[in-house]
Amino acid sequence: MELNGILIPAATPFDPVTGELDLVGLRSNLRRWMEHPVRGIVFCGSTGEAVLLDDDERFALIEGGRELIPEDRLMVVGTGAESTRATIRNCRVAAGCGADAVLVQPPAFYKGQMTDAVLRDHYTAVADGSPVPVVLYQVPLRFSTLDLGTGLVSELSTHENVIGIKDSRGDLGLVGDLVERTRKGFQVLVGNGARLYASLEIGAVGAILGIANLVPGESAALHRAFTEGRTGEAGRLQERVAPVHDQIVGAFGVAGVKAALDRLGYRGGDPRAPLRPLDDAGRTVVHAVLAQAGVQAGSDPA
Amino acid sequence: MELNGILIPAATPFDPVTGELDLVGLRSNLRRWMEHPVRGIVFCGSTGEAVLLDDDERFALIEGGRELIPEDRLMVVGTGAESTRATIRNCRVAAGCGADAVLVQPPAFYKGQMTDAVLRDHYTAVADGSPVPVVLYQVPLRFSTLDLGTGLVSELSTHENVIGIKDSRGDLGLVGDLVERTRKGFQVLVGNGARLYASLEIGAVGAILGIANLVPGESAALHRAFTEGRTGEAGRLQERVAPVHDQIVGAFGVAGVKAALDRLGYRGGDPRAPLRPLDDAGRTVVHAVLAQAGVQAGSDPA
Amino acid sequence: MELNGILIPAATPFDPVTGELDLVGLRSNLRRWMEHPVRGIVFCGSTGEAVLLDDDERFALIEGGRELIPEDRLMVVGTGAESTRATIRNCRVAAGCGADAVLVQPPAFYKGQMTDAVLRDHYTAVADGSPVPVVLYQVPLRFSTLDLGTGLVSELSTHENVIGIKDSRGDLGLVGDLVERTRKGFQVLVGNGARLYASLEIGAVGAILGIANLVPGESAALHRAFTEGRTGEAGRLQERVAPVHDQIVGAFGVAGVKAALDRLGYRGGDPRAPLRPLDDAGRTVVHAVLAQAGVQAGSDPA
Amino acid sequence: MELNGILIPAATPFDPVTGELDLVGLRSNLRRWMEHPVRGIVFCGSTGEAVLLDDDERFALIEGGRELIPEDRLMVVGTGAESTRATIRNCRVAAGCGADAVLVQPPAFYKGQMTDAVLRDHYTAVADGSPVPVVLYQVPLRFSTLDLGTGLVSELSTHENVIGIKDSRGDLGLVGDLVERTRKGFQVLVGNGARLYASLEIGAVGAILGIANLVPGESAALHRAFTEGRTGEAGRLQERVAPVHDQIVGAFGVAGVKAALDRLGYRGGDPRAPLRPLDDAGRTVVHAVLAQAGVQAGSDPA
Repeated sequence: MELNGILIPAATPFDPVTGELDLVGLRSNLRRWMEHPVRGIVFCGSTGEAVLLDDDERFALIEGGRELIPEDRLMVVGTGAESTRATIRNCRVAAGCGADAVLVQPPAFYKGQMTDAVLRDHYTAVADGSPVPVVLYQVPLRFSTLDLGTGLVSELSTHENVIGIKDSRGDLGLVGDLVERTRKGFQVLVGNGARLYASLEIGAVGAILGIANLVPGESAALHRAFTEGRTGEAGRLQERVAPVHDQIVGAFGVAGVKAALDRLGYRGGDPRAPLRPLDDAGRTVVHAVLAQAGVQAGSDPA
Repeated sequence: MELNGILIPAATPFDPVTGELDLVGLRSNLRRWMEHPVRGIVFCGSTGEAVLLDDDERFALIEGGRELIPEDRLMVVGTGAESTRATIRNCRVAAGCGADAVLVQPPAFYKGQMTDAVLRDHYTAVADGSPVPVVLYQVPLRFSTLDLGTGLVSELSTHENVIGIKDSRGDLGLVGDLVERTRKGFQVLVGNGARLYASLEIGAVGAILGIANLVPGESAALHRAFTEGRTGEAGRLQERVAPVHDQIVGAFGVAGVKAALDRLGYRGGDPRAPLRPLDDAGRTVVHAVLAQAGVQAGSDPA
Repeated sequence: MELNGILIPAATPFDPVTGELDLVGLRSNLRRWMEHPVRGIVFCGSTGEAVLLDDDERFALIEGGRELIPEDRLMVVGTGAESTRATIRNCRVAAGCGADAVLVQPPAFYKGQMTDAVLRDHYTAVADGSPVPVVLYQVPLRFSTLDLGTGLVSELSTHENVIGIKDSRGDLGLVGDLVERTRKGFQVLVGNGARLYASLEIGAVGAILGIANLVPGESAALHRAFTEGRTGEAGRLQERVAPVHDQIVGAFGVAGVKAALDRLGYRGGDPRAPLRPLDDAGRTVVHAVLAQAGVQAGSDPA
Repeated sequence: MELNGILIPAATPFDPVTGELDLVGLRSNLRRWMEHPVRGIVFCGSTGEAVLLDDDERFALIEGGRELIPEDRLMVVGTGAESTRATIRNCRVAAGCGADAVLVQPPAFYKGQMTDAVLRDHYTAVADGSPVPVVLYQVPLRFSTLDLGTGLVSELSTHENVIGIKDSRGDLGLVGDLVERTRKGFQVLVGNGARLYASLEIGAVGAILGIANLVPGESAALHRAFTEGRTGEAGRLQERVAPVHDQIVGAFGVAGVKAALDRLGYRGGDPRAPLRPLDDAGRTVVHAVLAQAGVQAGSDPA
């Protein structure tokens, strides 16, 4: 399965009054995202507030999502849980609901005990038990998680059902290490929208980008320009979208992405508590960054 | 509600063959624990592998547990989840199943965004929404969590439905700070079985002790000796049980507690994956520590 | 606990596009219903499509509902499941979320085996295990259920935590039997909006009325007029609302209630599949019946 | 997918003390059943007490079951729920966990409204949404359910993802109607162990037999003898096992099957409440019937 391209880690809109899942909003966003040549959608990732969702909401997301994602695009679902068995179960549910692959963050609560040997066993059991390919997920380090060592990833890359990793640490050196030390064909994806170009140069094949919620067309164009050798164009696009990452996704996280979605005419809304919506000052920044990047509601082909 | 005394954060036994919840084992343990003058039981804590349990298993635990815990003992249930609404829901379920209080760990996944203001709002909403009193839970720092500031705890202690904190950091200075800077009547519990005596001297009123799974009688006796002014006896008991904490609970975590339970004739068994059971070397240490502390299967009144 | 009065078995609105729970709509309905002197609300009953809801949706309903139902009104929650243990669990969850009482339909799947002795054991265990009072629920016989014998109800009425029954069979003779053969103080509620007056005369103390979704004011006024001895007024109100029961609730079931809610400016919408929305001919009937009964969007105090 | 042969609707053993799922017992039964040339196993059917299981238990059953059921045997899972969407979701979960096909009973609660048109829409949506083939399930009429008309089944048999029906009504005429009026290749299974021979003669291709829990070898041999034209042998086997159906499965239902399992050295145990275990008189009958049929613990190849 080819992950090369841009995947959108879909933000999850909630109803402003009740706080329940807003599937109408999600569908509306999906239709618009699908007009761009992105590789696919990731549900139940960090940007999608997966840890704040109920089980039934996750079902509704992936079932409702699959209906709007054409067969030739990927639906990837985050399935990592603290126990090995719950993780496998989530993978099976996702597969049954039409996921093409799963994105598996490591169990982290008992961090002190999560040695490489423990994590290797965990991921091996998950990869053995998942009906669809597994993508390892190196969660951003500003979250409460652990750091998957390159040696461990190298070892896991030899499992036939482990097809890649999404590395959200944002360190180019580490991306290079991953590319170099994993088996040929193992697909490295990154998460930093300000370093996409550089990451592709180093050997990443694609990305799951928070900014792709906001600039799916530009993100996909950057990737295509790079892969087709139009490096000048890729560079210009990178310059244009880098601030969207640095000053919105990086600076404000989920709340920033959602405020920007609102500004662009998508359905964003507030994140679910305990996450907080952006305050007015934050929104002003978001609006300014979007304007400067030339991104606006009307700029969208839809 | 008086939390003063020793609460046992019950380990959760699983069936050795299937890995499913072993309620027979749990009941057997509960009957034996209840023969000692402990203040109560905590379900769904870190020692109980709460994050590795399914929803239905948590139900089975607390419903099955309540049947064996007399009305004059406390049943406290861990209910902290990542979202505010799921945490409140868990509190309501626990209350409906007969919990006397709930133990609430902070949401930690989006750690970088969990400022004091965010956590204050979260805990206030939880305390407002919980039908039973809330005990804050400062998770051990070797786990993947965040550190609740004393200022925040001080502020939260003024909420009438927040009656105490369990501090598992193991730092006596921080315990002293908590006692000093929270409202009168706010109950500070500790989690370190090697520093129980010292913690009580500083003003803690009780403890939720991993070692109380193994030495419930000694733990309760230590607490009583201290509160009745028999400090020499309390000191001797502290010396005796300190290694059980340091070399079993502290050194090996859940797997250590479970191996020790097995040794003492309780139902321990293996932790659930990805946690690993103790290897032979570990078991040898556990057995030696128990022997040296004079704890053995036969020493129990049962 | 006094059940005397009219309870509304709240219809559950769903989003027209996604089919997900429409909590905004429910809240809006609740605010309007609460302007009338009804005794309370029943969630998760047959009219509320309880069997078509997910677990998380039931949580959302009762948590969201409780916020809008004042303390002096009742919130009753349907909790009957096929297994005894699941039924008890549901009662505990409902109680934890603020239910004042639970409405328990019998397990019916293994109908051939549900003898009186089996049902007595089931209900006794449920009444023992429920933290809040139990109301037995005799489901309408056009549904797939079983018929609770009067002898069984009589026996169950002696349990101190079984405070009443809702009988939806619509047979006045059976209501009389129930009143006569149950312990003094046992509260008989009916479900037939065309025979409320007659039922009250026979000894019923109140009702859970599908029509109270549509004519809460008239239903409550009828009950009050009867209890205050104004029988002429009660009779006139009964004549007025009887067709609303016979030609909407009785004839079309949930779909009829929802179409009528739409007509009256409440949020009704379509029932969830496999239930079907009313077709145009059905809607014409509903509109005509409402008009003839003098009920219209503008007639409401809101 | 060929359903021809005998499928065992696996009884679900529970722990005698706690009432929780006994997966050890299930595995032990599965190993023994798999020694016989049965076509496969059905989980979450009526004999498996599906309606009395929690969601997590269903997961545990089918995940644990799949591990012991070789790839060349079928695992079929009951997935029928009251709502169309929950039914589809269950099908997807089952598929993700390795089910080869799903067995879908009709929604029955709102029986009065379940017209053929409504049921056709329901089953069509389920067949469209299920990743694995659908087998219709005509539940025994002594349960609380509805009767699928032959016209409806005939129509549904044209859907490419509806591959057969299990008819548990026990009426040979109806079986004949089904065979005749459904599309060629549509597979009719029966559930009555006393009329297997006759059903095969009429055109049924196999059966999901409660008695196959007890006499898997004899049931499979009967089917094979018939299909290989050894009708005399098939007839003798039918005579031998008919009383096992009539006097155990038919007379006592799940409790009878479980008591017989216990007698034969399988893990049976008590059904879950409100179902009741067999009393002593019942057990005496069960033992006598097994003895007369020449079935005993020791007669098994295990």
